[in-house]
Amino acid sequence: MKIGMIGLGRMGASMTTRLMRGGHDCVVHDQHPQVVERLAALGAIGTASLQQLVTTLPQPRTLWLMVPAAGVDALLAELVPLLDAGDIVIDGGNSYYPDDIRRAAALQALGIHHVDVGTSGGVAGLERGFCLMIGGDDDAVQRLSPVFKTLAPGAGNATPTPGRKPGSGSADQGWLHCGPHGAGHFVKMVHNGIEYGVMAAYAEGLNILRHANMGKHAAEVDAETTPLRAPALYQYEMDLPEIAEVWRRGSVIGSWLLDLTAAALAADPGLDGFEGRVSDSGEGRWTIQAAIDEAVPAPVLSAALYARFGSRGQADFADRVQSAMRHEFGGHVEKPAHKAPR
Amino acid sequence: MKIGMIGLGRMGASMTTRLMRGGHDCVVHDQHPQVVERLAALGAIGTASLQQLVTTLPQPRTLWLMVPAAGVDALLAELVPLLDAGDIVIDGGNSYYPDDIRRAAALQALGIHHVDVGTSGGVAGLERGFCLMIGGDDDAVQRLSPVFKTLAPGAGNATPTPGRKPGSGSADQGWLHCGPHGAGHFVKMVHNGIEYGVMAAYAEGLNILRHANMGKHAAEVDAETTPLRAPALYQYEMDLPEIAEVWRRGSVIGSWLLDLTAAALAADPGLDGFEGRVSDSGEGRWTIQAAIDEAVPAPVLSAALYARFGSRGQADFADRVQSAMRHEFGGHVEKPAHKAPR
Amino acid sequence: MKIGMIGLGRMGASMTTRLMRGGHDCVVHDQHPQVVERLAALGAIGTASLQQLVTTLPQPRTLWLMVPAAGVDALLAELVPLLDAGDIVIDGGNSYYPDDIRRAAALQALGIHHVDVGTSGGVAGLERGFCLMIGGDDDAVQRLSPVFKTLAPGAGNATPTPGRKPGSGSADQGWLHCGPHGAGHFVKMVHNGIEYGVMAAYAEGLNILRHANMGKHAAEVDAETTPLRAPALYQYEMDLPEIAEVWRRGSVIGSWLLDLTAAALAADPGLDGFEGRVSDSGEGRWTIQAAIDEAVPAPVLSAALYARFGSRGQADFADRVQSAMRHEFGGHVEKPAHKAPR
Amino acid sequence: MKIGMIGLGRMGASMTTRLMRGGHDCVVHDQHPQVVERLAALGAIGTASLQQLVTTLPQPRTLWLMVPAAGVDALLAELVPLLDAGDIVIDGGNSYYPDDIRRAAALQALGIHHVDVGTSGGVAGLERGFCLMIGGDDDAVQRLSPVFKTLAPGAGNATPTPGRKPGSGSADQGWLHCGPHGAGHFVKMVHNGIEYGVMAAYAEGLNILRHANMGKHAAEVDAETTPLRAPALYQYEMDLPEIAEVWRRGSVIGSWLLDLTAAALAADPGLDGFEGRVSDSGEGRWTIQAAIDEAVPAPVLSAALYARFGSRGQADFADRVQSAMRHEFGGHVEKPAHKAPR
Repeated sequence: MKIGMIGLGRMGASMTTRLMRGGHDCVVHDQHPQVVERLAALGAIGTASLQQLVTTLPQPRTLWLMVPAAGVDALLAELVPLLDAGDIVIDGGNSYYPDDIRRAAALQALGIHHVDVGTSGGVAGLERGFCLMIGGDDDAVQRLSPVFKTLAPGAGNATPTPGRKPGSGSADQGWLHCGPHGAGHFVKMVHNGIEYGVMAAYAEGLNILRHANMGKHAAEVDAETTPLRAPALYQYEMDLPEIAEVWRRGSVIGSWLLDLTAAALAADPGLDGFEGRVSDSGEGRWTIQAAIDEAVPAPVLSAALYARFGSRGQADFADRVQSAMRHEFGGHVEKPAHKAPR
Repeated sequence: MKIGMIGLGRMGASMTTRLMRGGHDCVVHDQHPQVVERLAALGAIGTASLQQLVTTLPQPRTLWLMVPAAGVDALLAELVPLLDAGDIVIDGGNSYYPDDIRRAAALQALGIHHVDVGTSGGVAGLERGFCLMIGGDDDAVQRLSPVFKTLAPGAGNATPTPGRKPGSGSADQGWLHCGPHGAGHFVKMVHNGIEYGVMAAYAEGLNILRHANMGKHAAEVDAETTPLRAPALYQYEMDLPEIAEVWRRGSVIGSWLLDLTAAALAADPGLDGFEGRVSDSGEGRWTIQAAIDEAVPAPVLSAALYARFGSRGQADFADRVQSAMRHEFGGHVEKPAHKAPR
Repeated sequence: MKIGMIGLGRMGASMTTRLMRGGHDCVVHDQHPQVVERLAALGAIGTASLQQLVTTLPQPRTLWLMVPAAGVDALLAELVPLLDAGDIVIDGGNSYYPDDIRRAAALQALGIHHVDVGTSGGVAGLERGFCLMIGGDDDAVQRLSPVFKTLAPGAGNATPTPGRKPGSGSADQGWLHCGPHGAGHFVKMVHNGIEYGVMAAYAEGLNILRHANMGKHAAEVDAETTPLRAPALYQYEMDLPEIAEVWRRGSVIGSWLLDLTAAALAADPGLDGFEGRVSDSGEGRWTIQAAIDEAVPAPVLSAALYARFGSRGQADFADRVQSAMRHEFGGHVEKPAHKAPR
Repeated sequence: MKIGMIGLGRMGASMTTRLMRGGHDCVVHDQHPQVVERLAALGAIGTASLQQLVTTLPQPRTLWLMVPAAGVDALLAELVPLLDAGDIVIDGGNSYYPDDIRRAAALQALGIHHVDVGTSGGVAGLERGFCLMIGGDDDAVQRLSPVFKTLAPGAGNATPTPGRKPGSGSADQGWLHCGPHGAGHFVKMVHNGIEYGVMAAYAEGLNILRHANMGKHAAEVDAETTPLRAPALYQYEMDLPEIAEVWRRGSVIGSWLLDLTAAALAADPGLDGFEGRVSDSGEGRWTIQAAIDEAVPAPVLSAALYARFGSRGQADFADRVQSAMRHEFGGHVEKPAHKAPR
């Protein structure tokens, strides 16, 4: 197919490249001319404006937006007046699904299809393929199936799921029409919420292993600090890169995120290249909001999100409140921080 | 009664003073001679050694230990050989209750009584009285009741509990024989676990109020950070000292800890005198251990404890693990910390 | 003052009564005529319709709404057309503060003042007074000060906060103008979020105490269940009513919620009259939403909220997912539930 | 090698079978004669007593124990008197690592080696191989390396970790000597702690997806329940089996546990075959204990553990405490449980 791609950042560029490798013609645009040139050098048709992009595409057009969630409304305000009934606009970024519902309704009034595609896979997706979670009307999704097939990983080397009838749908090829407008981003949102939880689980476990030598540190005896009762139980110097490595083979917790962790630890065993300020990009927050709206407990996913907030110093005032209370009732004075060994 | 008091720190000194005000004779000892002198100036009989303290007390002796939990075994090793059958040793500090069980059995073999007393009230206890949670055998507890009556607050200005028969026990006087050896410290342990949870609840709430102005800060638009969707909803400059103050009158969350918080905020509205490294002193940890042994969920008490660990930088490596994973799968680079406004 | 009161449920009726005791004239209305009659018997002017209520009040009118948050918009749709410029509408219920902002703007266009008042104190407020957290413009709040003074507890028997200049504001009388529109309900929202956390802290602690006898239960030895390692440490039969009672005197965790807990336990030591399905009414959820919008960690408040969701069976499917996984990887079969002793 | 295997449950039988397939001679024993016969039919040398097992093995002997953690001490009490200096006892079950340290010291006094092996892989390990985390002295581990090589998966189809030098250790073959006595079970303990967290992350996410249709349910308007503000946002009927399936291809959260989840959902989309009482078997608890001893936050792993406790009704009394409080301050009466749709 001939497809317009707007937004050529890390993800957009990778997806364009994979589409071209799969035989699709890509007409591309980005605010930054140099990334357009880079893709053009790989075979894409670069354009200097949205206007030019739109006129270059045959009708009905297929336009894939791959821009930050916060930039979608501004982009649509500029783009939509250039489009015609029958065109399809795909939002492949990380939009909040209520925005999909709102935008789809607005576009539908103009006869334009809106398709939301939650896209997972990161920078590795160029080679591995991207996992696609799709929301929208059947016709549009059907029209786009060649694109989805190319972007998705296919069955790959994942073993068939026992008990599942092969060919009963596209999920085992790595793309799925999840439901009406917003369903794709809803599923992707929850996917990322889970991702936060899984990442935090590994992180907490590795932190516990890292401190398994704490019995070697001297303990003080005062009323403020309870000394470790059994220092003899914490005398281990754990080799975290090798532990992550061994878990990749046959253990219950093998996963792609563990593969990545092993790689990161192999390259930098103490992870000294990181400060530990963990970003979060919206989906994790919206997942909690959905859980609360649904009155469904999500303690693990919430704890993972809060750990990210905390890693950026956002608990600071709450901590000071507690130190202030302790000073009030017990005359306790704060002690200098016990620096974590690095 | 004539009572020996060993350990004249913040708590020990206050309790000795309250006992003397209540008409008891106190024979005191501490590693630091100057604190012995200070109490002697208030009427106590100061002693220069454990030996002197023991010989100064009439048999059967009553000895109240008020030392850090980590120092009790060493103290008993020195003290017990000086004692006789019929003596009572009271551990009024924050010992771990399994230690009580162990020590009580060892002392019992010598005919010496062990009584564990969890003591709450902090430095304010001198005037308010101390809440006493007591474990041990009936005879010893009975013998000590004059001491408990003096140390405890009495009914004070707490209203009688509707539905409770007055005079049905000493709990409404602020002291309670909770059960056999260890029961006092067990109840005190859980008391402190609850205390951590309550403190954290206020702290989190005040932190949310403090950031109610965050819509005034500029938001960036990139794929790493989701901008606040509705900045207009976060335009409040909350007066935390006055909010804590108003909650003290008639609200559901009125409490002594809130009183203290209001006092701390009145003195230092931004709590700039604190760094936010919150100590923890054992009971909070043991409470979680008990919950886990009992297979009882304690998510709130655990979260409160972990917030203290996190305030001291102990999540650092876990945070770096997550930043490393994000770099692996998304090429994400850490952003400079968003500094919390102080 | 002459004040119209709409909504005479538990809270509305108590507040009306307290206002009348304080010398105010109350014109009242409710969907249910019998509650109107009940208040009329106490001296209120009962009305049969909003129309009648409005015409009975002198201009500029003062109308206090005390209805469920979900019913406010419908009520305003009916009420506002009957009002005139200069009137004040007070929302004293548990509205979500963004609704206040929206409604205040709509009313402002008509010259009508909107004041949001978060009201805490429960059914006890009739005698204790109500803690009032207020948002709105200065003029309206000023006009209403006689009403606030009557409803609020006044200084009561709460000791003055050390370091706070008496007379520096109304907070020490139990009412506070917290800021512009929505500020009152924002502060009340966070108040309730804290309340959830504090309640859960006590509840978890008491649950741990209740299971302190679990060492008496026989333990099985199989690969599914780890037996308690040290049954001797869990042999306590704790007297929860008396423990709650003793904590009310001099302990660090004394609070009004603890007073209530002691009363509930005195009346029903096993709390057998309750099933343990804990409701939540909005503010706790919105507090978490605010925390997440502000990127502020709220692990304790969230855990408390989720415990309520879980108490109503809302984790059911998540639990089944985990049992299904265990069956897949380990062939584990679920065991019959270990019934908590009641 | 010739190896004695004691304990032929699910895991022990699979491991014995895999060892025999790998050319090792297995002498086996179990309390249940029929499982001994079953393994004998596959080529093992069955024995009727520990005595017979020991005498059948050549010196120095290699004995692999695969029994529940709670049964190890009793087994050793019977077994050790039959052994000789130079023998190796391997504990391949889920023992608590402090027990390893204690037992290893006791055996060392007799010249007997103790090796602790955390074994992961579940029933699938027979074909996939078992991930082995090993603690003990170098000599013994070295002697056992042929056994470990057979049991472990080998490199399998896991891609090499970028940046790791191949051949730099056995971790990429699926077995690792983690450190001195207890190190193997320590690493396995943390592995299982992580496992609990990862499982709960998926479970919570799938639960949120399952309730994405809740906007279709009617909402009530009362003061006890906040109705869903935007029912239109929760109208999705999510196909959980297909969503789990699509996530297996190219997504960030692909994992073996997800593979198992997809299989379970394919077989039983509503998981109606499960009640949702999730067992826990020790390691998850001990992981939290280690975190607390180390003062390392583990909010995700704890939340996962508590969810299991809660699934078995262990929060019941805490829930009733909260309902009792609500009744006290607000006169709130519990509402019938909102049944989760099944």
